[in-house]
Amino acid sequence: MDPPAISRYPVPKLEDLPDDIRARILEVQEKAGFVPNVFLTLAHRPEEFRAFFAYHDALMLRDGGLSKAEREMIVVATSGANDCLYCIVAHGAILRVYAKDALVADQVAANYRKADITPRQKTMLAFALKVALSSSEIDDDDFAALRGQGFTDEDIWDIGGIAAFFALSNRVANLISLRPNDEFYLLGRVPKKS
Amino acid sequence: MDPPAISRYPVPKLEDLPDDIRARILEVQEKAGFVPNVFLTLAHRPEEFRAFFAYHDALMLRDGGLSKAEREMIVVATSGANDCLYCIVAHGAILRVYAKDALVADQVAANYRKADITPRQKTMLAFALKVALSSSEIDDDDFAALRGQGFTDEDIWDIGGIAAFFALSNRVANLISLRPNDEFYLLGRVPKKS
Amino acid sequence: MDPPAISRYPVPKLEDLPDDIRARILEVQEKAGFVPNVFLTLAHRPEEFRAFFAYHDALMLRDGGLSKAEREMIVVATSGANDCLYCIVAHGAILRVYAKDALVADQVAANYRKADITPRQKTMLAFALKVALSSSEIDDDDFAALRGQGFTDEDIWDIGGIAAFFALSNRVANLISLRPNDEFYLLGRVPKKS
Amino acid sequence: MDPPAISRYPVPKLEDLPDDIRARILEVQEKAGFVPNVFLTLAHRPEEFRAFFAYHDALMLRDGGLSKAEREMIVVATSGANDCLYCIVAHGAILRVYAKDALVADQVAANYRKADITPRQKTMLAFALKVALSSSEIDDDDFAALRGQGFTDEDIWDIGGIAAFFALSNRVANLISLRPNDEFYLLGRVPKKS
Amino acid sequence: MDPPAISRYPVPKLEDLPDDIRARILEVQEKAGFVPNVFLTLAHRPEEFRAFFAYHDALMLRDGGLSKAEREMIVVATSGANDCLYCIVAHGAILRVYAKDALVADQVAANYRKADITPRQKTMLAFALKVALSSSEIDDDDFAALRGQGFTDEDIWDIGGIAAFFALSNRVANLISLRPNDEFYLLGRVPKKS
Amino acid sequence: MDPPAISRYPVPKLEDLPDDIRARILEVQEKAGFVPNVFLTLAHRPEEFRAFFAYHDALMLRDGGLSKAEREMIVVATSGANDCLYCIVAHGAILRVYAKDALVADQVAANYRKADITPRQKTMLAFALKVALSSSEIDDDDFAALRGQGFTDEDIWDIGGIAAFFALSNRVANLISLRPNDEFYLLGRVPKKS
Repeated sequence: MDPPAISRYPVPKLEDLPDDIRARILEVQEKAGFVPNVFLTLAHRPEEFRAFFAYHDALMLRDGGLSKAEREMIVVATSGANDCLYCIVAHGAILRVYAKDALVADQVAANYRKADITPRQKTMLAFALKVALSSSEIDDDDFAALRGQGFTDEDIWDIGGIAAFFALSNRVANLISLRPNDEFYLLGRVPKKS
Repeated sequence: MDPPAISRYPVPKLEDLPDDIRARILEVQEKAGFVPNVFLTLAHRPEEFRAFFAYHDALMLRDGGLSKAEREMIVVATSGANDCLYCIVAHGAILRVYAKDALVADQVAANYRKADITPRQKTMLAFALKVALSSSEIDDDDFAALRGQGFTDEDIWDIGGIAAFFALSNRVANLISLRPNDEFYLLGRVPKKS
Repeated sequence: MDPPAISRYPVPKLEDLPDDIRARILEVQEKAGFVPNVFLTLAHRPEEFRAFFAYHDALMLRDGGLSKAEREMIVVATSGANDCLYCIVAHGAILRVYAKDALVADQVAANYRKADITPRQKTMLAFALKVALSSSEIDDDDFAALRGQGFTDEDIWDIGGIAAFFALSNRVANLISLRPNDEFYLLGRVPKKS
Repeated sequence: MDPPAISRYPVPKLEDLPDDIRARILEVQEKAGFVPNVFLTLAHRPEEFRAFFAYHDALMLRDGGLSKAEREMIVVATSGANDCLYCIVAHGAILRVYAKDALVADQVAANYRKADITPRQKTMLAFALKVALSSSEIDDDDFAALRGQGFTDEDIWDIGGIAAFFALSNRVANLISLRPNDEFYLLGRVPKKS
Repeated sequence: MDPPAISRYPVPKLEDLPDDIRARILEVQEKAGFVPNVFLTLAHRPEEFRAFFAYHDALMLRDGGLSKAEREMIVVATSGANDCLYCIVAHGAILRVYAKDALVADQVAANYRKADITPRQKTMLAFALKVALSSSEIDDDDFAALRGQGFTDEDIWDIGGIAAFFALSNRVANLISLRPNDEFYLLGRVPKKS
Repeated sequence: MDPPAISRYPVPKLEDLPDDIRARILEVQEKAGFVPNVFLTLAHRPEEFRAFFAYHDALMLRDGGLSKAEREMIVVATSGANDCLYCIVAHGAILRVYAKDALVADQVAANYRKADITPRQKTMLAFALKVALSSSEIDDDDFAALRGQGFTDEDIWDIGGIAAFFALSNRVANLISLRPNDEFYLLGRVPKKS
């Protein structure tokens, strides 16, 4: 039986890709042990691929008041609200790895109010969901609530920017019917043996 | 009286910007006669600026079955659904210019069903709004309806991609409270004299 | 090419109308320079025409704490929420004229939170939108917030009454597919030369 | 104990009202045996009172393809969707009387799909609810469905017009917190003895 | 003419039912004077019947801080929000009887904010509707508001439990298209003569 | 550090429970290797506990056209729509075990349209979600669509009944803030070694 399609669109072969894109994909493969499907499927459009990952990296690898795990929490919570299977599963895995916590991703995807996270993180996710779902209603009170939890204005841009970027990402994934790699489902759930 | 703020965040001076960003802004200024506020305000974060406009150009300047005016229609219709003042006003202006039509932008922003556009364009905008508002429900029937109006699968990616990119753009604009330049409101409304 | 239809329903000729209705229409034409389509299209039903404009005038021409521009702001904001093209375009024009402000109508139609208006006016529009969208939830707290901005109870009736009247008006316009006159789109955007 | 207030606003005394309004109220009182609270409470604003009832009568007393009971069904169904206590209770009573049916009003207020009404009436109410809740989405398919059940275009205006008028009425009632007369609750429920 | 169906599913005859179920139905019939349709229609599935009424009784007959009338208010308010005809009509009747109040059921079904009930009861119903409509957002503030009105934590479980049970009940009634007995509509509306 | 609370309410000790409830819990513990928290937390109210599990078993253990895995799919999909962490995690585990499929639970919780399930199962879940989210709109067309996929009317009751029962269950879990056992998160994800 053929493996299930990972996109509604043609998926390029690694050898047909521009050098920079192939290099990025090989680098990810080396690090993760497999190529996440978002790389191969978006490579169908090289220019959008480059812009997508440049934007992603600018927000997710940025220094600042948010930890890497917190950035992934924002991704998982907003992707849950947008019912994006790929992002819930793939970024859920990354969140488990960064947070060294096997449970937090499923908690945040379902309902951040029940997650084992700090009040500060709950305030962060409440705002991220507002950006995801009703951004036209953002006002000064939202900034005040976030500052009250110690977030700087640059942190707030990060929170909102990540929620906004995954508003894009979730929609593209739903558009092309992007399938998560099977590997993601288990990643970070079982403690590694020493 | 001070002019109203164009962003909740600091707006860099042109002379403080990296060369490539300053060059892009000067190019736009030369072409448009003014600097749209999205350029100056996003320049607060140069890496995101570069990714944003690279993504924008990849979708909006791409060859394919959609005209430039149709691409702007998608922006205006979805920004209307997201209540994003900047994008409605700025891209409404661009739509008027590209379509050489003083009325279509206000029509599409309010209710595309009442706009002076073709049935094919109405099918396009119905899908764009689905991507904007309920992308998890996209299915094969949507693709069939679009193909029935002559759209190729690459056109469909363009439609969905633009709706997805402005899902991001609308949210960032609402986050930073991006103010449209006064110039946009009138642009394309008055026929130029020969 | 025929001009586009201005209603799904037959549009009476001026000479076939009852005297009082024809007189009102001629009066408007004299004042505005053209006949707004709402007059000709509603004249298809003379009794409803008379009641409609009597109600309109009772609310919009009433003395009280709200300026004429503020009354039109309520119309534009609630019509934006109801996606009524005619009312956004026609009353947007009237708002620009009364407010002597070329920008405020597009701002209020998209998102009153971003408009160049006073906090008092934002409180007014927040309540108008509640009347438009979730009137069953109105309670004493709403009245307290409005009184806190200096509105009297009669002002509050005006705000709510205008929002309620345009709940009717928007629905009738959407029912008959009422087309705005082309003239409205530009009205009040270009300063008159002295 | 004082009787409960019937409005948030002052309620005029009969003797203080303009002659035409007092006459109308006395006429209703004679016919119904009591004065429905909507008359006394709206009389606080005589001009709006006159326009309101002129509009009401133009739609509800009009000749055409809809029976009086069907017109009241539209009122009750849309008032149910808008959670307007006064209109559900008062027009529920009138519906019971016109339809000579003690059950239909409660059925239509809760869920017209479960009511003992004809398929033609269900099509009518489905459209009325679309006018009440999402009028910007009305399109040719709606007209086709109604014509398929034998409704003329004038009937469709009646259906939509009544739904639109009670969009106004429900909002005004919720604004002023209009209390239904106790008499309405039982009216039409008990068969009259001969 | 045949009487209207009371369920989409077969309705068992009393003599074909297991003894315990028949006994319960006869007991209800003796008390109420008729057999409410929920009994006969759910008896199509005896095991679910037994569990349904055991759950019902555990919540509705429980001792505690809520009166029987208050328990029925919760049923009527949440069934109104779920548009469940059977539960609005049948439990509306029971509420009228328990509260000895001919008006309260129609008030609570339409909009509890307008009902002749205490502030404590309004707080109770606001929470019941949150359980019915957005239970994932329940948080400590809700418990605080209820405790502030004197409800114990066991009372709060009762309120939430009843709202939850009728979330089930409303859905089953809508699934099988359960028809209310005609008797319910009038019950408790006319004061009994002594 | 104390383990996190598994309920807002007191959790009884096994030795304090009525015999039948303790026996049931011990039986589950023997089978599963641990006591799912729903048992201990609901045991705070023995009568509701008994009714809850009687109802659960009547629907989930019933013979008929739905497999055990399909019944759990309904639970997971509707619990996902209701954002109920406990039910997503606990029944996701059970679904993985019954379906012998490590991926299907996360797929169905996020978006059944993207899951590796049959078209018949997608029709089943579309209906289950309608029961969960808008049961008042159920009509004959829904039954026709299900019959078209080979479901009997009794199967349809099962689908709707399970969706209705978990409408209750999700709300109770959210009310008491029921915490999933850590064991559930990993269950059924790793193939057992032979």
